[in-house]
Amino acid sequence: MQYNTAENPEWDILYEIKSIHKPGELGKLMTAIGDAGGLIGDINTKSVDENHSIREITISVKDENHRDLVARAIREKTNAEILVMRDLVFEKHKGGKIHSARNENVNTVSDLRYIYTPGVARVCLAIKADITKAREFTNIAKSVGIFTNGTRILGLGDIGPVAGMPVMEGKAVIYDQFAGISATPILVNTKDPEEFIDTVINIAPTFGGIHLEDIRTPDCFYIEDELIKRLNQPVMHDDQHGTGTVTLAAILSAMRLCGHDKDFKPVVAQIGLGAAGFGIAKLLIDYGWPVIGVDLNPDSQKRLTDYGGKTASLADAMAQADVVIATTGIKGLIKTEMVRRGQIILALTNPDPEIDPADAMNAGAAYAADGKSINNALAFPGLFRGALEVQARNITPAMKIAAAEAISALAEKDELVPSIFNPKVHDAVTEAAKGAWKAV
Amino acid sequence: MQYNTAENPEWDILYEIKSIHKPGELGKLMTAIGDAGGLIGDINTKSVDENHSIREITISVKDENHRDLVARAIREKTNAEILVMRDLVFEKHKGGKIHSARNENVNTVSDLRYIYTPGVARVCLAIKADITKAREFTNIAKSVGIFTNGTRILGLGDIGPVAGMPVMEGKAVIYDQFAGISATPILVNTKDPEEFIDTVINIAPTFGGIHLEDIRTPDCFYIEDELIKRLNQPVMHDDQHGTGTVTLAAILSAMRLCGHDKDFKPVVAQIGLGAAGFGIAKLLIDYGWPVIGVDLNPDSQKRLTDYGGKTASLADAMAQADVVIATTGIKGLIKTEMVRRGQIILALTNPDPEIDPADAMNAGAAYAADGKSINNALAFPGLFRGALEVQARNITPAMKIAAAEAISALAEKDELVPSIFNPKVHDAVTEAAKGAWKAV
Repeated sequence: MQYNTAENPEWDILYEIKSIHKPGELGKLMTAIGDAGGLIGDINTKSVDENHSIREITISVKDENHRDLVARAIREKTNAEILVMRDLVFEKHKGGKIHSARNENVNTVSDLRYIYTPGVARVCLAIKADITKAREFTNIAKSVGIFTNGTRILGLGDIGPVAGMPVMEGKAVIYDQFAGISATPILVNTKDPEEFIDTVINIAPTFGGIHLEDIRTPDCFYIEDELIKRLNQPVMHDDQHGTGTVTLAAILSAMRLCGHDKDFKPVVAQIGLGAAGFGIAKLLIDYGWPVIGVDLNPDSQKRLTDYGGKTASLADAMAQADVVIATTGIKGLIKTEMVRRGQIILALTNPDPEIDPADAMNAGAAYAADGKSINNALAFPGLFRGALEVQARNITPAMKIAAAEAISALAEKDELVPSIFNPKVHDAVTEAAKGAWKAV
Repeated sequence: MQYNTAENPEWDILYEIKSIHKPGELGKLMTAIGDAGGLIGDINTKSVDENHSIREITISVKDENHRDLVARAIREKTNAEILVMRDLVFEKHKGGKIHSARNENVNTVSDLRYIYTPGVARVCLAIKADITKAREFTNIAKSVGIFTNGTRILGLGDIGPVAGMPVMEGKAVIYDQFAGISATPILVNTKDPEEFIDTVINIAPTFGGIHLEDIRTPDCFYIEDELIKRLNQPVMHDDQHGTGTVTLAAILSAMRLCGHDKDFKPVVAQIGLGAAGFGIAKLLIDYGWPVIGVDLNPDSQKRLTDYGGKTASLADAMAQADVVIATTGIKGLIKTEMVRRGQIILALTNPDPEIDPADAMNAGAAYAADGKSINNALAFPGLFRGALEVQARNITPAMKIAAAEAISALAEKDELVPSIFNPKVHDAVTEAAKGAWKAV
């Protein structure tokens, strides 16, 4: 079986370069860049006069040092002049990535009197008389609040909620573009779970759904449990359940690629029981599969056994499992000698997996992949849109399982999951979630 | 001097009407509508075939009964058929009036890797290293949270935060369109001031500015004071200070229209010391004018005297004042015999003022107006934009005074204040606020 290896993360730098406008100069420039290890992307000519041209050249480099190395090569080996270098990641973040926008312009005094006073008073009274009218006449029913306290932003740890904002805005962009959901980041400036919970509850009427993001363990488990109990709207901690849903989709695809029967019930080793690992383990148990968890933390072990899983040492779990999922953050944790012939192995830690897929395949795995393609953004927009559309009071295991099956069904050829740009996937997840909703 | 009388609020109903398409039929229809007291606005032809036309006709009516009366007149006196009637206020609210929108599309895998993982991690780390970078790389510095607990929505009273959402969305539309500010309504589900304050503080890092809206007295005063003390970003209760700013602008215009010298220091009677009245009184005291407050509530009186004002009975205040501002909610409170020759009277209660401007003029006032033109939306977008642009830690009296002078300067001819559609006014308020900011 084939496996995925994506390139390492790259820094895309836009170099604005002024060079002499005559034959041969551009070739010299390209060669200098290539010799310095810069990978050339788009080239746009900004202006040309008799003597010079100014071009914007996007060059992928490894890091800051490599960016400067490429610049030095250009300066030393060509006649070109670098006018400016711009980091495209930071460029894309300038001024933020989202804003709260009006749906229509207010062009006339009439418009203003419709959407503001005095007209608005009648709409307020209509909602006061029948609160369900808020679904129709406000944005609430199409909205999600993305709540974080910044205690576990990506793999960066506790960097605080403000430094986490770019991630929250990124999620909001994805909600808007892929599901038409109005998502608003809310930075909660407390590490105390009770205070976090109270704060969310106090402003919960603002939003149709509550998306929890990048909260450290074990607080994230307690916070989510309490909010699900105490709120009447869907609550989901994406790091657990978005990941769980997409991982189940990937396992279903991998089993299909390996020719497993639909009824085959694999023994799964879930290595690492943090937010992602526990979310995956729970969903696989909900799906009816036996799960063996591996984690040194006794609390994490207890959490899993309370939910119906078993625990074992890494060696024992590897020896028993048909499917191995690793979410430990520890590069190279799984040794080739632990791999059992015929295993499906998803080593999901980014950018450096628990075992290199090529090594796992050489050691006898039937299928191995890393975490590059496992993107929560396949799941959360459609899961919340579906939940909001059917007014689900929570996002149930059945909804996540239906979503996972829908995602896996759209994977093409040797893909584990489809691209998030696949125009069908978010509608498919939405419909799956809606179809599976049943009050519990 | 002239005075303003705006028409009463109207319901604009769109009647979709199918009528026989031959000469004379439309005239019959228009006549029937006019006879029933319906005021015809836009007429759009939706479709025409050989025998019939379908038109959308906007008709202003007084209320629900009048809407049905017009419909009955059409049915009884013409051959036309009403296909549907739609209330344009509710139409404009369908699906809500705002949404959280992406600034740019995500078109490619590269785009996604720039705005989401892995690229976003570098932006998070840059902010972690220097939190002021959040101004540049997130939406925070251009954003305002509009917080309400729904305890005093418009003149409707305590209808709860969800029923108040259409007002908050309306304000957000105005922020977006007139100042490019990203404003997000936050519904706070508590009537306890301490809990309200804690909730705002807990999520305050999400926003550049904190706009308080439609909170009952006296809670609004305490909440605002505490938040100003405890937060490092601008906090403003619009019902007090937006109103104060625009009212000062209106008084300055009225004094100009009456030929008063610039140095004339009027004695002002502020009748009613609720949120709006107290906000006005404070700003006029800040402006250096003597203010006599009228209110039966001893707490309201004390609040004013603590701020440097005096109190008196209605009759005494009317007898002493050069300028009378009324914000009591009590129709007809000011009797014509109380009016002193040469007074400027702004009776601001909507829709029924404390004294009809025509009656006040007849009784000898130099200038009289009601509250129809006093629109906070002239002030709050520019005040907050200005405050955010200069990173003001609070919105000072000097900023509000400068804004009021800027608003008044743009009033044309016999206007008290310019239209909020005047393209200059929001920039002028912004610049005035910026120019007047000084850390205090």
